[in-house]
Amino acid sequence: MLGFLIPKEYGFFDDFDKHAAACVEGGQIYVEMLEHFGDAPAKVRRLRDAEHRADEITHHTVEMLHKTFITPFDRDQIHQLISLMDDVIDLIDGSARRMMLYGVKEIPSELLELAKILQHSTLELQKAVKHLRDLKNSKIILAACIEINKLENDGDAIRDAAIAKLFKDEKDAVQVLIWKEIFEDVENAIDRCEDVANVIEGVVLENA
Amino acid sequence: MLGFLIPKEYGFFDDFDKHAAACVEGGQIYVEMLEHFGDAPAKVRRLRDAEHRADEITHHTVEMLHKTFITPFDRDQIHQLISLMDDVIDLIDGSARRMMLYGVKEIPSELLELAKILQHSTLELQKAVKHLRDLKNSKIILAACIEINKLENDGDAIRDAAIAKLFKDEKDAVQVLIWKEIFEDVENAIDRCEDVANVIEGVVLENA
Amino acid sequence: MLGFLIPKEYGFFDDFDKHAAACVEGGQIYVEMLEHFGDAPAKVRRLRDAEHRADEITHHTVEMLHKTFITPFDRDQIHQLISLMDDVIDLIDGSARRMMLYGVKEIPSELLELAKILQHSTLELQKAVKHLRDLKNSKIILAACIEINKLENDGDAIRDAAIAKLFKDEKDAVQVLIWKEIFEDVENAIDRCEDVANVIEGVVLENA
Repeated sequence: MLGFLIPKEYGFFDDFDKHAAACVEGGQIYVEMLEHFGDAPAKVRRLRDAEHRADEITHHTVEMLHKTFITPFDRDQIHQLISLMDDVIDLIDGSARRMMLYGVKEIPSELLELAKILQHSTLELQKAVKHLRDLKNSKIILAACIEINKLENDGDAIRDAAIAKLFKDEKDAVQVLIWKEIFEDVENAIDRCEDVANVIEGVVLENA
Repeated sequence: MLGFLIPKEYGFFDDFDKHAAACVEGGQIYVEMLEHFGDAPAKVRRLRDAEHRADEITHHTVEMLHKTFITPFDRDQIHQLISLMDDVIDLIDGSARRMMLYGVKEIPSELLELAKILQHSTLELQKAVKHLRDLKNSKIILAACIEINKLENDGDAIRDAAIAKLFKDEKDAVQVLIWKEIFEDVENAIDRCEDVANVIEGVVLENA
Repeated sequence: MLGFLIPKEYGFFDDFDKHAAACVEGGQIYVEMLEHFGDAPAKVRRLRDAEHRADEITHHTVEMLHKTFITPFDRDQIHQLISLMDDVIDLIDGSARRMMLYGVKEIPSELLELAKILQHSTLELQKAVKHLRDLKNSKIILAACIEINKLENDGDAIRDAAIAKLFKDEKDAVQVLIWKEIFEDVENAIDRCEDVANVIEGVVLENA
């Protein structure tokens, strides 16, 4: 009734868009790093920058939550959404740093495949987030969420096959452990994209 | 006041029951597979079927959420409940597939013990879900949730002892890794039953 | 308007305080155990006592939720808060028990560092929980939550470096596995403190 008196708070959507852009950038740098691994340290620094930027956006969102009387949807869901998106970029950044720490030299093709799935997931996530401003787009949003779920299934299959191959062929158990952890890092980032999609699905279902 | 005008939406409960039945079936096939491991590939196919069926139920529930104006309880809790139940059957299915991928030959007795705890958890979960239709049964529901929590503790202890034994006796580090992962798969499925129980407990506490 | 007629239910806050005290005690006993590892079995018993006490507080809270008409904040958040705090002490207790099971003899300095971060996190958590009674203290509460987030980042870095060192120096793959798991146990407990902080942040944002 009095809706016309209450200024709609679009700042949250701007933050979501900015954060999603950082996640997309993170996914892309990670793929580039794997494709040209000789140049990895420079890519790790760019990832770190993207991660810091994402952190600042997250803090800004949480501050806005604290100061804004009317939020575009449930406060707790806004909080979850930005926290889980922040996990995505944290996991990408962490995975790259760990590859440096563990002194990795060569990149198995399955890792690049997984990284491309992750990159694809971040792009779908960006699409879903972008359309949250207007829930008339709920079909587009839900389609992106379904795609993210599908990508997560694909990622699981690649990860399982890669680890089975590792168990079969790699004789050095410490190398098995290192690669198992790296594969799982990327899989976890893909899983977190799915968690974001689930929160978004919930928002759409409750508000559309 | 106008409650009598609003048709109660029981479709969600039907879906929960069907999904719980798929989880129970999954737990049972998994135990049978371990008891007669020579016949594992046939069991893996049956698990895959149960998992697909559960997936379809999950999608149906999410679609219903989208179309239903009055839900029997909080939309987000319905979404969580069906998603977590879906994780249970996914984890059982994934564990069986991974055992095939890793070329497992013999089944340690501790794995069968863990699998029976998982099966028991799915049965308690089915009981809790079934009584959600009528929160006058809150005592039965909460008792099932407490049992699921207890089973999760038992599972933890078995898993810890099994892995300690593995660390002590198995000389082949890759075998240690394989079995550690398989034990943890089953433990994760049991943990997820507990997550479902926690959501159910929340529903009861908020609505009873 | 009628607020003065409704008795505020402070029992929940008493339970939160008691549970936080058990977590702080758990963190402290764990550090002491690592500092004087010869005396570990006695410390493991004290941890077990603290864990049991925390369990009873958790059950009491859930029962109160069931019987209380007016709760100081969202029922689901109370449920999450106490469950996640219970995970913290469970993980500390589980880690200590596993060290016994695995026959650990010497404590690497990085584990003590991680344990001290965990102890610090439980102290910040206690502070945040204590001030929840009066959301006029939201600044103090949010500052504790930010500190817990910072500690979690520090913990990640120590854990990564410790595992990189392990991969490089430890020749016995089973020892690598054992220590990797123990480091990850402590890191998980620190992560869970952060999950508690996130719930608390949500409560403050919604109610302050």
